[in-house]
Amino acid sequence: MSKENASKNQLLRMPTYLYHLKMLKESGVEYVTAPKLARELDLNVELVKKDLALVSLDQGKPRVGRSIDVLITDMIAFLEYDQITEAVLIGCGSLGSALADYQGWSNFGLKIVAIFDNDMKLIGTKINNLTVLPLERLEEIQAIYHAPIGIITVSKQAAQIIAERLVKAGCRALWNFAPVHLRVPKRIIVQDESMASSLAILNHRLRQ
Amino acid sequence: MSKENASKNQLLRMPTYLYHLKMLKESGVEYVTAPKLARELDLNVELVKKDLALVSLDQGKPRVGRSIDVLITDMIAFLEYDQITEAVLIGCGSLGSALADYQGWSNFGLKIVAIFDNDMKLIGTKINNLTVLPLERLEEIQAIYHAPIGIITVSKQAAQIIAERLVKAGCRALWNFAPVHLRVPKRIIVQDESMASSLAILNHRLRQ
Repeated sequence: MSKENASKNQLLRMPTYLYHLKMLKESGVEYVTAPKLARELDLNVELVKKDLALVSLDQGKPRVGRSIDVLITDMIAFLEYDQITEAVLIGCGSLGSALADYQGWSNFGLKIVAIFDNDMKLIGTKINNLTVLPLERLEEIQAIYHAPIGIITVSKQAAQIIAERLVKAGCRALWNFAPVHLRVPKRIIVQDESMASSLAILNHRLRQ
Repeated sequence: MSKENASKNQLLRMPTYLYHLKMLKESGVEYVTAPKLARELDLNVELVKKDLALVSLDQGKPRVGRSIDVLITDMIAFLEYDQITEAVLIGCGSLGSALADYQGWSNFGLKIVAIFDNDMKLIGTKINNLTVLPLERLEEIQAIYHAPIGIITVSKQAAQIIAERLVKAGCRALWNFAPVHLRVPKRIIVQDESMASSLAILNHRLRQ
């Protein structure tokens, strides 16, 4: 199985492995086996073996396991966290500010290069060394950065118009936190982050 | 198919329908058909028909469609947004504050009743009419509210300990925003909200 064929569920699990491997490394562990990882992450051991085989060519040593350092390096390369992708963020309300303020994006290969809002009270203020820019400057700034990702943290009313502006300004992927279905050309990648959907699942399971 | 058998994907789609139906209602539309919904939400029409049949007994009128008012009411009842579930939130950093500050939870049947942190600079400050309480008061407060949901927005280092305290204090479900796998008893429902996993998928698709 090649990397390009990684399933969505495999991709979803990879950051979990990486976090866990880093945690093991921090606590001084040097080697790990698939059964140990499976046990600690409540996963099926065959699944873990397949996932690790997809990420790392190194098979480890019999009775010792795989080197955690090697696995971490291979996992970072697999997830391309070593390559930085730039993003612009639209909407500096509480959620947008929280995302802009997060110090850890570079660990995931993301760099927010510019943040925008149309609220006069927010424009000019600083979040994490970025100045909130007026929304009308989006196209001008994006002409400089050509950021491939647009992060949408505006209201559901504004989201569609913002999505269209981001696409026109050259974004190839939209990370959408607004609770609305965006209508964009098929070539554009949309990743919806729906808290409402997560909560629907949580509540459903809670009430069963 | 009964409500209890709703698939995860069906549950994930329901809030999307509800938002879209509300938007249609706001723009003055009174009736809608499954093909129209399918087209506007980029979904398969047979899928939409099955989803709507699960939620609403009302079949609508031939050539007119289903009443949007009836669908909205049925969808809210299906998602149990009319029943409020209480939650406590631990960790009032930027993400926790954003969640605590969100005015729309009641629309999703969630009410955050108490928020906690151990940072002296945050304790005593107010977010959305809730005072940030010292973490050591968690058990005492939870003995009053018996909130079934615990929202975890602390660092990955603190998440496991907080999860254990929430479980001990009677939470039956954890909504986990910390990027770490929580080890809790099997009866506890855990919904992980991993931005890193979402970003892994987005980046993977962007680079293909």
